[in-house]
Formats: sequence, structure tokens, C-alpha cells
Amino acid sequence: MFSAKAKSEVLKEIVDVISTLVDEAKLNLGKDGLSVKAVDPAHVAMLDLSVAKDAFEEYSADEQEMGVDMDKFKEVLKLAKAGDIVSMDYDEEKNRLIMSVGNITRRMALVDTAGMSDPKAPNLNLPVKVTVRAEELRQGIRASESVSDHVALICTPDGFEMTSEGDTDSVNLKLPKDLLESLDCKETVRSLFPLDYFSNMVKAVSAAGSITMFLGTDYPVKMEFKVSDGKGEVHYLLAPRIESE
Amino acid sequence: MFSAKAKSEVLKEIVDVISTLVDEAKLNLGKDGLSVKAVDPAHVAMLDLSVAKDAFEEYSADEQEMGVDMDKFKEVLKLAKAGDIVSMDYDEEKNRLIMSVGNITRRMALVDTAGMSDPKAPNLNLPVKVTVRAEELRQGIRASESVSDHVALICTPDGFEMTSEGDTDSVNLKLPKDLLESLDCKETVRSLFPLDYFSNMVKAVSAAGSITMFLGTDYPVKMEFKVSDGKGEVHYLLAPRIESE
Amino acid sequence: MFSAKAKSEVLKEIVDVISTLVDEAKLNLGKDGLSVKAVDPAHVAMLDLSVAKDAFEEYSADEQEMGVDMDKFKEVLKLAKAGDIVSMDYDEEKNRLIMSVGNITRRMALVDTAGMSDPKAPNLNLPVKVTVRAEELRQGIRASESVSDHVALICTPDGFEMTSEGDTDSVNLKLPKDLLESLDCKETVRSLFPLDYFSNMVKAVSAAGSITMFLGTDYPVKMEFKVSDGKGEVHYLLAPRIESE
Repeated sequence: MFSAKAKSEVLKEIVDVISTLVDEAKLNLGKDGLSVKAVDPAHVAMLDLSVAKDAFEEYSADEQEMGVDMDKFKEVLKLAKAGDIVSMDYDEEKNRLIMSVGNITRRMALVDTAGMSDPKAPNLNLPVKVTVRAEELRQGIRASESVSDHVALICTPDGFEMTSEGDTDSVNLKLPKDLLESLDCKETVRSLFPLDYFSNMVKAVSAAGSITMFLGTDYPVKMEFKVSDGKGEVHYLLAPRIESE
Repeated sequence: MFSAKAKSEVLKEIVDVISTLVDEAKLNLGKDGLSVKAVDPAHVAMLDLSVAKDAFEEYSADEQEMGVDMDKFKEVLKLAKAGDIVSMDYDEEKNRLIMSVGNITRRMALVDTAGMSDPKAPNLNLPVKVTVRAEELRQGIRASESVSDHVALICTPDGFEMTSEGDTDSVNLKLPKDLLESLDCKETVRSLFPLDYFSNMVKAVSAAGSITMFLGTDYPVKMEFKVSDGKGEVHYLLAPRIESE
Repeated sequence: MFSAKAKSEVLKEIVDVISTLVDEAKLNLGKDGLSVKAVDPAHVAMLDLSVAKDAFEEYSADEQEMGVDMDKFKEVLKLAKAGDIVSMDYDEEKNRLIMSVGNITRRMALVDTAGMSDPKAPNLNLPVKVTVRAEELRQGIRASESVSDHVALICTPDGFEMTSEGDTDSVNLKLPKDLLESLDCKETVRSLFPLDYFSNMVKAVSAAGSITMFLGTDYPVKMEFKVSDGKGEVHYLLAPRIESE
């Protein structure tokens, strides 16, 4: 059994985050909320999203898995304005998800979850923790896109830096400690990441939001941020690229 | 003789309706206004548009046919803001239409009307009449576009429905009687239509407008709506598709 | 030595003007400001832009040439909102331009200026001078684009005209003397120009600006207008096309 209602913008944020990594996702429904674990096809990034029951206007569900096509979900959300209520009901008999917005009902075939595993996040010991406003990162990403496909994330005890090196040009975003929301860094760390993966996830963070990053040297970055009015939480793990220097 | 002035938005609505079906149209000018009859190249839909003289700021015309290229007409209208006056004058000597907006004049070659017939609407006995706000239909169309190329229009004594069936998914817009502007329906009727033709015509209706539909079972739909501030009237006939069930 | 700060919109206007003609430009820096002279690859148009020191918030420079890639410059300006300050510093050691917006720094390789000449404007005796609001010209250009690749600029003692003749249609913009900002014309003159070159330069003029044109018959047009809040001046020379009549 699954039956829920939510504001369209709450669902939109969830779907935006998931669809940065995968086209189809397995929703793990439970009594207290839902969660999604996913790895992208290239195994570069891993996502762990959980949304509490009270992110919804109404929510009731049994323990259950539901395979959802993200594009179809988006098509329904596009029919809604901000504030519109979207309702979702599981049709057990036909194994379909029934979504409604206003006077419109979409009956949606579900996706087979047999092949979808529940990836396990590795245990990582990342020495540095920094919290940055998403808007600052977005500016840095926009600047980097014109010079390189990669971005180095750097933390020193004095602040956070993002650097992209192209053949002739370079871009650098420098946020001294007082422009950060928090910084816990005793040693300088630096890792290189694929810009597109980093960019897609940062773009999924709401405009006014902030992102906490856990960093090491030549280690994955763990990113954490809130969605759905603080009722949902995203953990995102992105593998580093080896720097050839 | 033909000489007229009109607000750009009045002409824009007329041109938008005509150009959903044809690229070139024969305008039948008369003392009391103008009319256009047109059939699309695939003979799926037929249009009968009439605009009264008082839709114009100024209007005077002899009985006359004028073949107009809709794209050229649109190009001129694009130069005008809402509220701008567009003037049209027939240059008999050179068989051209002279259109002016502000300080700009466009002299436009007319199109030969020799091959353009005046289609006659068939006499149809359609048992059901329903009036729906265009905005409701537009939402239903947007939802349908992601699942199918066809849409079924259904009326029951209780309300109006629009349904699209795809291979795995379906979309349904349900408007109970109290959400309709009017409903005259004693028996349930249902016909299937090509979604693109239906969509193009609904999009040509002004945002706040409503559409009256006359329906039967496996019969064409006759759609009627107003344009040009209520001074113009459109009758649109769309052929059904056979439902294979 | 070169070090300057300017509002992003001031730089944007300069870059927009230059990039209508060339992808790479040689900036001639001097104590009192900078200037750019450029000819397009097809040698149809010539540009002479000068910007006074006080267009900048801060400015100090030695006499020096600097080869700049306009696209890279634009990429940096896109990071800035109107009112944001963009700073520019020449890194002599690495022959790079260092540009900053907010917390972002872009280090940009410069372009070799060896092959870039300083074109000299010919001495022309153009009998007519007319000043027109850019917005009027833009409307005329928009209308002309649908009928021809060329535009004739015409001046009479009574006013200014822009005419485009297509195979079947024509467009005419007529500005009588009282709609012009100034007119100094004793004889009728007429020259034909490539519409795209004329259009690109007119589009680079700020929305509320006006353009002074010096005209003759079958002669180039010299266009003059202000940029950067009146602190910059553009002289633009466009070669005529021969009219075949």
C-alpha cells in the first residue's frame, strides 16, 4: 500500500536530485518515509536520499519497493504550479502508480526493480569538513566550464578553493574562511573531480541552500545537503580523478 | 477596394487561427466584415472564420477575394506591440497588400486564389454540446502529449472527459458538470481525434476563452469559439479516427 | 603595466561592439584610456573605438598593446550582474590578463598582436549628417530581414528613409524630419548596404541610444555613437554595395 500527497515543489526537488544520476530509480517505501539509493551507470557517483514522512501533506505506506521512471514523474510535475498538490497512489492490481494534479490523472507503468541493487556507501575517513553556499559554488562552476572538464576542490585552514586548469587559461574561486558557513580543516587537502558530475549535483540544490563537503587528498568528496524544505536529506559521493602532475 | 485599421492583437488572433491549418488563405472581403474558409492539405480539419467589421478600428471593403501568405502577415504583426494599430490597404494596380505599423510600411505580393476552393461544411447532427474553459483543455493536452498521438473526447450526462492511452501509460482529464460552463448531454458519446490537430486549435484560443464542442460517437467534433474581442467567430470541424478496440 | 576596474555593463558594451567585427582584437592601452581599431576579415567594415579613462572605476596603464580573445572576455562578463565590478590586471611575467568578478579569478592567455594592423580610416567627404534613435533603426531592420539581405539608406531634405527590396515584397521605414534628432541634408543621397553588417552594429548600440550617420550617394556610411555611459565613442565605417538598376 502506498498513498501520498505532496506539494509539487517538494517532489520536484527530489526528482531533480535523483535524475542527475539515473533515469530509473528504486524507491524504498517505509512507514516513516522513503529513501533512494543509486549509482550512475559509470559508477562514478553514488546517491543516498531519504525523505521523512512529514515532507508530505499526507503519507501512508507499507514496506515496499517501487521502480519509477524519472522522466514520466517529471512530466506529471510539469503540469503543476508551485503550491499545487500532487497525489500518488499505488494500484496494486495493475502494478501502476496513479498520479493526479488538479483534474488530471496519469496512470504510470512501474519499472522492474529486480536488477536494481542497493549500493552500500564505503566507509571513508575524510579529514576536512566545509560548508559552502550553493550559489557560490554555482558561480565557480559556471566560470570553470569554459576552461576545463575537471575541477579541483581544495581546503586549507584559511578557506576553500575551487580550481580549473585549461591548456591556456585557468579559473579559481577562492572563499576565505569568513565567507564560509563553517570550516573544520587542520591540513591542506586537494582532490580532482569530473566537472559535470559535480555541477549536476550542485545545480540540484535549492537556490538558497548550502552544501557540506567532506574532503581528503585524492579521495572522494562526500556532499550533504537538505531538500524538500529540510525534510529530506541527500548524501552524495563522487569519486576523484587522478591528477597527472 | 479594401482599407482597414486594427489593433495588432486582434489581427494576431485571426492569423494564429488560420495558420494552424494553412500557409496561404483566401480572405473573402465584404462590406460587413471578412471571412475565411479553409481545409488543411490532409483534409482532416476544416475552418470557417468570420470577423465582423466592428472588430476593426476602421474598415471599408468591396466584395473581393484576397490571397494572403500567413507567414508574411505574421512578420508584419511581429513588429507591433499589443495596442499598436496596423493598417492594411489594397493596392489594386500592383495587386499588393500594403501594411503599415508605426513608421514602417510593407508592400506584400498577394497569392493567386484560383486554386483555392470554398469548402462546404457537411450537415452533421451532433447530439451533445459542451462548453469548456480553454485553459482546462490545454492542461489535458499537455499531459496527453507524453503518452499518445491521439485523444478521446467523451461526454456523459455527468461531465466531460479527455483520455489518451499509450502502450504502458494513460492520461485522463475529468471535468465534472460543475466545472463546465455548460453541458447538454443525454447519452454518453465518445470519439477519437488526432492530438496535434486538436492541440493546435485549442492553443489558438485566447488564454481566458472558452470553447464549445459539439460531439457524437465516432463522429467529427465541431468546435466553436470567439476571437478578436468577441467580434470574430471560429467554427472548426475535426474528423475522427477509428478506434481499434 | 595595466590595472583597471569597471562596472560589468560598461565592459559589456565595449565587447559587444568589438565582437560584431572580430573574434580577437588588439587593445591599444594608453595613460588616458584605451582604443581599438579593427577591420572585419572580409574588409567590408572598419571600427574605431575609444574609451576614456573615466569610463572605469579605476584605471592605470602604460602605453602598450594587448591582444584579447573576445569570447573569453565575454565568458568572464557573463559571471557578473549589472553593477558588479570587474577587475583586470596584466601579468607581465606570464603575458596573461587576470580578470576577477566577486570571488572568481580567470587567468587568460593573451593573443599575439604581431599580425594585427592598425587600419586607417579613409578621408571621406560625406555631404549629409543625420541622427536617428537606435530603436527606430532596429524596428526597420527587423522588418527588412524578412524581405532582403540589403538595405538602402536614403536622406532627403525632408527626412530619413530605409528601404529593402525583395523579389515580391518591399519594406520601407520613413522618418520625417520631426522624428529625427537632427538632420543636415541639402540634397537627396542614397547608398545600399549589406543588412547583416548594418544590423549587427545597430544592435550593439544601447537601447536608449541614438546613432549619427554620415551619408553620400554610393558612398560608405560613417556611423557614430556613444558607449559606456557616454565615456566611450565608436566610429564605424561600412562599405556600400553597388546598386544594379
